[in-house]
Amino acid sequence: MSRTVSSLALIDRVKAGEAAAIARLISRAESGAAEAHEALARIYGLAGRAHVIGVTGVPGSGKSTLVGKLCAALRAKGERVGIVAIDPSSPYSGGAILGDRIRMTEMASDPGVYIRSMATRGAVGGMARATLDVVDILDVAGFDTVVLETVGVGQDEVEIVRASHTTIVVSAPGLGDEIQAIKAGILEIADIHVVSKCDRSDANRTLVDLKQMLMGGLRAAPPGAWHAPVIGTSAFSGQGVDELVAAIERHRHFALESKSGEQRRLAIAEFRLRKTAENLLLDRFGEKIAQAGAPLAARLMRREADPYSVATELLNTALLRETGHEQDARSKIA
Amino acid sequence: MSRTVSSLALIDRVKAGEAAAIARLISRAESGAAEAHEALARIYGLAGRAHVIGVTGVPGSGKSTLVGKLCAALRAKGERVGIVAIDPSSPYSGGAILGDRIRMTEMASDPGVYIRSMATRGAVGGMARATLDVVDILDVAGFDTVVLETVGVGQDEVEIVRASHTTIVVSAPGLGDEIQAIKAGILEIADIHVVSKCDRSDANRTLVDLKQMLMGGLRAAPPGAWHAPVIGTSAFSGQGVDELVAAIERHRHFALESKSGEQRRLAIAEFRLRKTAENLLLDRFGEKIAQAGAPLAARLMRREADPYSVATELLNTALLRETGHEQDARSKIA
Repeated sequence: MSRTVSSLALIDRVKAGEAAAIARLISRAESGAAEAHEALARIYGLAGRAHVIGVTGVPGSGKSTLVGKLCAALRAKGERVGIVAIDPSSPYSGGAILGDRIRMTEMASDPGVYIRSMATRGAVGGMARATLDVVDILDVAGFDTVVLETVGVGQDEVEIVRASHTTIVVSAPGLGDEIQAIKAGILEIADIHVVSKCDRSDANRTLVDLKQMLMGGLRAAPPGAWHAPVIGTSAFSGQGVDELVAAIERHRHFALESKSGEQRRLAIAEFRLRKTAENLLLDRFGEKIAQAGAPLAARLMRREADPYSVATELLNTALLRETGHEQDARSKIA
Repeated sequence: MSRTVSSLALIDRVKAGEAAAIARLISRAESGAAEAHEALARIYGLAGRAHVIGVTGVPGSGKSTLVGKLCAALRAKGERVGIVAIDPSSPYSGGAILGDRIRMTEMASDPGVYIRSMATRGAVGGMARATLDVVDILDVAGFDTVVLETVGVGQDEVEIVRASHTTIVVSAPGLGDEIQAIKAGILEIADIHVVSKCDRSDANRTLVDLKQMLMGGLRAAPPGAWHAPVIGTSAFSGQGVDELVAAIERHRHFALESKSGEQRRLAIAEFRLRKTAENLLLDRFGEKIAQAGAPLAARLMRREADPYSVATELLNTALLRETGHEQDARSKIA
């Protein structure tokens, strides 16, 4: 493929499930290039068939292993599975450092599985927008289930995983205090709780603790609300994976048929719109402001100027330039 | 204090180190209210005296314990210490979940220490801007050292901690593979490496591994570059804390006197300006776009419209409205 293939020209090949075209369109979605916007807008219109499963959990909870097991179970049912893994990445080099996960080599030869590792650094300010575009590309490419995996730390990371149809939060026994505290912060986004590593002797304690923590929420829940089940799994024995697949299927029906499921999908659409608008806004002005501001950095460093005054002035100038043309056109019409 | 005290009126009380005024101005910086912008602009101009130390590390690395020990050592030297801890927080309730840290109760009675826990959720899209404003408030309030602590996961979180004068990355022995991979992604931002928990028998292995990893970078470094030291610490024995304080002092001089130190301060000023501009931009248009977009969410949900087209249209409309007034004024002058 030459570099000059337009993003629009890739759509038919993505629809046919051609791996090289999928990879290329994903790269363009990640880069946020304006050239790709029209193609991504079309992709959005074509997508909507796949079930999107968000998987998150504290570092060390065994998310990736669980995703591997879940993927194998869905494959056994004949589903095609796409996996988008958002990896914490190097702030300088921008590389996705978990790119060589074990499960990637395990499943790399299966054409029914597509795995993409995305670096958080790859799409500054637009990670949510880019990730959800990638989910849609895999949807259009014919993957029945798309799994979106992120580590449950970082505000952007947690926000993104909530923009799925079914959110799974993975806990594990035997993690330290800080990890437990982080866990407490993400528990409430779960549609399904998984306690991994249930072959460990201390896993039962984690299961019991988690169920007790959730009791209060259960009592307060309105009638017809979804009750997030707690499922113990073990990658060694395979325990719990079938139960998890069944719970996902139950939640999928709930999400499609309930009022709260529809509200969730509406909220995702609003989130998507907001993130796309923010991304376009920063694209259009961010670079201009940064360029205009660079000569002033020395004055800021010496505290002779302040970022609020400088930013306000730069912003006003950029807005005037941007809309001057449209304004003139409007004046002529009036 | 009544709710009607203006942010500007708080400045003198912040300068006098009055805790209630500090807390109040910090809350306003967090909320991002326009009313506070002028006061925060003034605070920026008054700040610049404190040494800002960023501390980050993977979950479970013992950052908070280290910050406690470091704080005690700086107090023993007679310094006043401010601590800003960015805590992973609940995406729904917005509460900072590590707020009741042990060290807070230990140091709460010392007027020479001020600790503020910030929820990542508190300042969506503006966490970096808000955090650095809070650092400046503590600087103006007379704290000699301000420690900025974040968990080393999440792109915003890592970006913020880089905006300090001296960045410390904390590693610990005996963490799992996923944690190690996350660690690899943040090592390169360190001015000083700390390996915590050096009372453990496996700590020496972690020290040796880390030093070996850093060897390549040392050889490639240009002459006059800073060589990040690796310091082993133990909260039990107190090992390494004095060495750490000495290394911070050395790096402080390097940062103030070297060309690369000045480049770093310039980069921080540019970062600060960019984040403030982004924040103002999203403040001015984000809400308008979200409101205008809400009625279209159902069409987006049904994939009858796409977020790119809708966002572009909403953005253009918002820009025209925003700048219409200024444009008219400009036309009259011309």
